[in-house]
Amino acid sequence: MPGSLITLTTDFGVADHFTGVMKGVIHSIAPRATIVDITHLIPPFEILEGAFTVEAMYRWFPKKTIHVVVVDPGVGSARRPVLVEAAGQYFIGPDNGVFTLLMAREKEYKVRHLTAEEYRLHPVSATFHGRDIFAPAAAHLASGVAPAKLGKVVNDPWIISGLTPVRTGKRFWVGTVLRVDRFGNLITNFRVEEFPAVMERPFELLAGLVKISRLAATFSEGEPGELLVVPGSAGYFEVAANQASAAQKLGVAAGSPVELTLY
Amino acid sequence: MPGSLITLTTDFGVADHFTGVMKGVIHSIAPRATIVDITHLIPPFEILEGAFTVEAMYRWFPKKTIHVVVVDPGVGSARRPVLVEAAGQYFIGPDNGVFTLLMAREKEYKVRHLTAEEYRLHPVSATFHGRDIFAPAAAHLASGVAPAKLGKVVNDPWIISGLTPVRTGKRFWVGTVLRVDRFGNLITNFRVEEFPAVMERPFELLAGLVKISRLAATFSEGEPGELLVVPGSAGYFEVAANQASAAQKLGVAAGSPVELTLY
Amino acid sequence: MPGSLITLTTDFGVADHFTGVMKGVIHSIAPRATIVDITHLIPPFEILEGAFTVEAMYRWFPKKTIHVVVVDPGVGSARRPVLVEAAGQYFIGPDNGVFTLLMAREKEYKVRHLTAEEYRLHPVSATFHGRDIFAPAAAHLASGVAPAKLGKVVNDPWIISGLTPVRTGKRFWVGTVLRVDRFGNLITNFRVEEFPAVMERPFELLAGLVKISRLAATFSEGEPGELLVVPGSAGYFEVAANQASAAQKLGVAAGSPVELTLY
Repeated sequence: MPGSLITLTTDFGVADHFTGVMKGVIHSIAPRATIVDITHLIPPFEILEGAFTVEAMYRWFPKKTIHVVVVDPGVGSARRPVLVEAAGQYFIGPDNGVFTLLMAREKEYKVRHLTAEEYRLHPVSATFHGRDIFAPAAAHLASGVAPAKLGKVVNDPWIISGLTPVRTGKRFWVGTVLRVDRFGNLITNFRVEEFPAVMERPFELLAGLVKISRLAATFSEGEPGELLVVPGSAGYFEVAANQASAAQKLGVAAGSPVELTLY
Repeated sequence: MPGSLITLTTDFGVADHFTGVMKGVIHSIAPRATIVDITHLIPPFEILEGAFTVEAMYRWFPKKTIHVVVVDPGVGSARRPVLVEAAGQYFIGPDNGVFTLLMAREKEYKVRHLTAEEYRLHPVSATFHGRDIFAPAAAHLASGVAPAKLGKVVNDPWIISGLTPVRTGKRFWVGTVLRVDRFGNLITNFRVEEFPAVMERPFELLAGLVKISRLAATFSEGEPGELLVVPGSAGYFEVAANQASAAQKLGVAAGSPVELTLY
Repeated sequence: MPGSLITLTTDFGVADHFTGVMKGVIHSIAPRATIVDITHLIPPFEILEGAFTVEAMYRWFPKKTIHVVVVDPGVGSARRPVLVEAAGQYFIGPDNGVFTLLMAREKEYKVRHLTAEEYRLHPVSATFHGRDIFAPAAAHLASGVAPAKLGKVVNDPWIISGLTPVRTGKRFWVGTVLRVDRFGNLITNFRVEEFPAVMERPFELLAGLVKISRLAATFSEGEPGELLVVPGSAGYFEVAANQASAAQKLGVAAGSPVELTLY
């Protein structure tokens, strides 16, 4: 059964009333729930960055945690609201691919279509399912409602393709930047576990117009501003610059391609 | 009696120590209180946007919630600190009109002037009543102090006039934009309940230099970028653009006029 | 013994997964801990602004509070992770000077080098000690582990020099701007307690290219935009402009010098 810890990840920003309203709904239904803000600054409508954030944080939470994820450009359209059970935790949000990286990592998961009317607020608005569907579902789970009561299992969750690097030659892979973090580090989709050779052999990583071949353990190696490839804390190789923004130096943003050559 | 859930809405931003200090004061007085951040990004001194945020979020909180609202350009001047009891909840902040929209909706309310010295921090600073008056009042309420102990009822709360649309012709009303949200949607002060005809009859809404006449249920209708009028989740008509910022397209900000014509 | 209230002050920003991950780690180890966000917007790598924030907020928290402070440009290098016990509270972070202002105020403190492997996450990453060392240490303290178990006392904590005003003449002192707050007020390092003469005698404070000689109790005195010196709520003299940004008017940022002349 789910616990009473609920996290919130949205693209609602932190200036509006939206996240406060969701918290009010949760506390109204589940007064003992503990709410944890992950971030509300997923760029508007950027499902891929939401998918990265979910994958990067859930592993550090205890079993039974309930994660609410609202990056939902299609709110009010036909996309389904879903509950994903994976890794002993619970994930609630739109079925638009925002759980793709979670599912890629966990392999075993169960997806339910959140259809139970009695666990929604009524009337359900066309524009704020975070308030009317997702927050109430999380709060009811936290209050002891069994997942099966919220809706039936479905077998065709929406998966975003192309999120893993593509091999384009014997020594070449094309990947992508999943996210640029606060420090300007480029988090690529090359997972350290899948590309251990980067740790052991000469390589080149092309980002923007620059080829980077220096591997470093930390951001503080090298000359100030020197570009480095670092096995990052989220499990992906990152492009960093010592005490500077690699993204600014390279003119690279989330979604930009990166090319890896292994020698 | 008030409960132990305390929300914070301020214009203090999220970079400074101010909100942390308020939380420390609350936890010092009421260790069991649960604190919920609504937003700290009300634009500095913008009482009207604070008033909108309060009105947009309180209805979703449980009875007995204590809301602390600090948008207080006149801190240290003669404006009164007040406690408003309305809708079974409690609202604490400066008497500068920030509770105008709450009072317009609830009609029945009681306002107390927070004068009790024993429920303040001393010395009371001239510049940070959030710390010295408002947070302590909230924490003492959450600890079981009766509202009547905090100060006497007053009958002349500060009300901001002109917040509702003005009829300027048989078919014409002039309203205003209460807030531009994160997505660039313009939240007008035309309440859906008061203007049901917009849902049923032809209309034109003039925002900036553009007349909009398409009603939509969700932000994702129409062509990308098409301007729409949507009955918004906060209960007001909003001007939105499918997956784009209506505010940017129209060059419109909070406080801008909007004109409604009903045919 | 430490309590179960844990605050977080970092330069991680609020858009990434970093602070969410730290919260997950804390809740995994100490399910009953209460986590309070102070700010995550310390400018990247700005240890001095972190030091100011710590000093400005801890005094308002109850005894036994555990403060986690991660402004850590040298993560992964040789700088030590430490626990500082002062004022009946607990402070965890890198030994890089971020506790300098705390120590300057408290005088009596004990510093421990956090070396106990059993209270870290393993493997300890080279880039995210907030997750692997600092958050676990805080959570174990909150769970009842004695401070002495986390590491031995050291007597040479890193102290940043030059944080207090320097007397450069009979009537002259040179100080610095510790921080520019949300409202554009310049928080100087002239403490009100140490310079009481400013409250009583004529003075000039040079900030940018402007000499300011008007003392005010609140930000709302004077003409709109008039520059004022105000005894600020954090205990330092601040340069403010009535309903305007003094920092913008003066072109002054954190780290800029300010000169005080007492007559």
